[in-house]
Amino acid sequence: MDRQSPLLFPVTLVDKTIFVLDETALPFQEIQIPVNTLDDALSVLKEMKTRSLGQVFLFFYSCLLFSKEYPIEVLAQKFKAMRPTFDFSMLAHIVTGNMQKGISLEQIVKHFIYGFDFMRRVRAEKLAQLLIAPAHIVTICNVNGELIYLYEELKKLGKETTFYVCETRPYLQGTRLTFWELEKNNIPCRLMCDNQAAYLMQQGKVNAVVVGADRATTKGDIINKIGTYALARLAHYYTIPFYALTQYPRDIDIESIPIEERPEEECFMFLKEDPGMVNAVYPAFDITRAEFITQCIEMKAVLR
Amino acid sequence: MDRQSPLLFPVTLVDKTIFVLDETALPFQEIQIPVNTLDDALSVLKEMKTRSLGQVFLFFYSCLLFSKEYPIEVLAQKFKAMRPTFDFSMLAHIVTGNMQKGISLEQIVKHFIYGFDFMRRVRAEKLAQLLIAPAHIVTICNVNGELIYLYEELKKLGKETTFYVCETRPYLQGTRLTFWELEKNNIPCRLMCDNQAAYLMQQGKVNAVVVGADRATTKGDIINKIGTYALARLAHYYTIPFYALTQYPRDIDIESIPIEERPEEECFMFLKEDPGMVNAVYPAFDITRAEFITQCIEMKAVLR
Repeated sequence: MDRQSPLLFPVTLVDKTIFVLDETALPFQEIQIPVNTLDDALSVLKEMKTRSLGQVFLFFYSCLLFSKEYPIEVLAQKFKAMRPTFDFSMLAHIVTGNMQKGISLEQIVKHFIYGFDFMRRVRAEKLAQLLIAPAHIVTICNVNGELIYLYEELKKLGKETTFYVCETRPYLQGTRLTFWELEKNNIPCRLMCDNQAAYLMQQGKVNAVVVGADRATTKGDIINKIGTYALARLAHYYTIPFYALTQYPRDIDIESIPIEERPEEECFMFLKEDPGMVNAVYPAFDITRAEFITQCIEMKAVLR
Repeated sequence: MDRQSPLLFPVTLVDKTIFVLDETALPFQEIQIPVNTLDDALSVLKEMKTRSLGQVFLFFYSCLLFSKEYPIEVLAQKFKAMRPTFDFSMLAHIVTGNMQKGISLEQIVKHFIYGFDFMRRVRAEKLAQLLIAPAHIVTICNVNGELIYLYEELKKLGKETTFYVCETRPYLQGTRLTFWELEKNNIPCRLMCDNQAAYLMQQGKVNAVVVGADRATTKGDIINKIGTYALARLAHYYTIPFYALTQYPRDIDIESIPIEERPEEECFMFLKEDPGMVNAVYPAFDITRAEFITQCIEMKAVLR
């Protein structure tokens, strides 16, 4: 098992400095941004230098370093102001709940981060059993190295696998992160533009969709990167199974979660030349209802 | 009526030189590529310097200039080798059919090009009557200025209009051509990534889809830019009317038309940096069946 991705641990702590892997510089450069203050942390979050798993790890390490100055609930509010769709208050709840049980903050964070990785492997194993062989899997955005775990599990089961990676406009997490980490690990994959998935489904060239989820409810609804919902609707039409990798489902109405609107300029940030026009729409996420999801593969909670 | 777009006449003839508007340089530069030989013509076609209406005009002017060296059917075959999805043999048939009626090649070409423009205005007028007000129209790729005609017709009818333009990856015709020509003419429009249309439909923010069509059949099926089919499927689910601007429908099976696969490298051509990875999928078009199309707005043929 020598397959690896820097995205599996996108945020690390060395002495009193948090190092954040700059995901916007990938795949061209692997830059670690040092974070020494809460302002540094909020700034990398706002600029989406890290997202997904990285923002979880960043929050936990921020609790370790900054909770003497700011109560943990306040940290969560400040994080939420940067990325309103993600549930930082739930992370705060995990931390404070465990502290009340007498567990030290250091222990909670360590346990969470390494336990989280273990549980992601378990989740990948479970999903691998559900996928049919040969697996031709459409995916969007990036699930921080978990597709590498998934590939290893599929391989153990003798299931041939190819990933079809949606580039994931406008931030191109599919191109820059997922496709890059798969290629780096010699995992069969093909990149495509987001608008090509429907055609591949129509042609019978893919037989599963696997996505992550920024939010999940106990009803089985999810919020994930914009573009996920279209994939789910289309997969449903073609009776292609659609799996979401989720964690911590909450008993809330999915419609009550605010959908983050990102700055319009970001629609152009990875283009060769800025067309100098910024009258754009950019909801960063969309909602997919349970009726269009075959199964949520939930991570068994490490700490509650 | 002072609204204009260079895309309304993307290919022109001056003396013995064809000038092709380089659509790949838009919106940054308006470059006219001189075409003096058939090889020049085939090269601009292959590199997609012009497409859609431009390739039609290029073919007609090429008949004028090169049909002494190459029979018109041979010209059509050579054009088809560059862009296999488009029906150049039908254009050749129009030319030869009218020549047999004793009409001069010069007259045929002139009649076709200016008559074509007139008929596009008529088509826009017809579509404007069908759209409900206020019209919030999703569009993809580029229909060479016809949305400007459509906007003018909608305005005459007192129908407020906003266009939601899909950027149209990977070639970004939506961003570089459609959004650009609408903004230039002060027509209300917002750009979005292709994967955002489903969300806008789900939110009830749009009430029509208008697309062009590279091919159409008498059954009402179309082939258009990749991404069109997904829009049609999703619009159908939300009972949002989906209109296709078509011409020359043929009595053939849509599945018999080859779908052009473009070079994988083109998936990256408008990105800031080439990620140096080229294992991509790139079908340039997709098929949308009549069942998902509310109405094809056909152009009354200028010449048959």
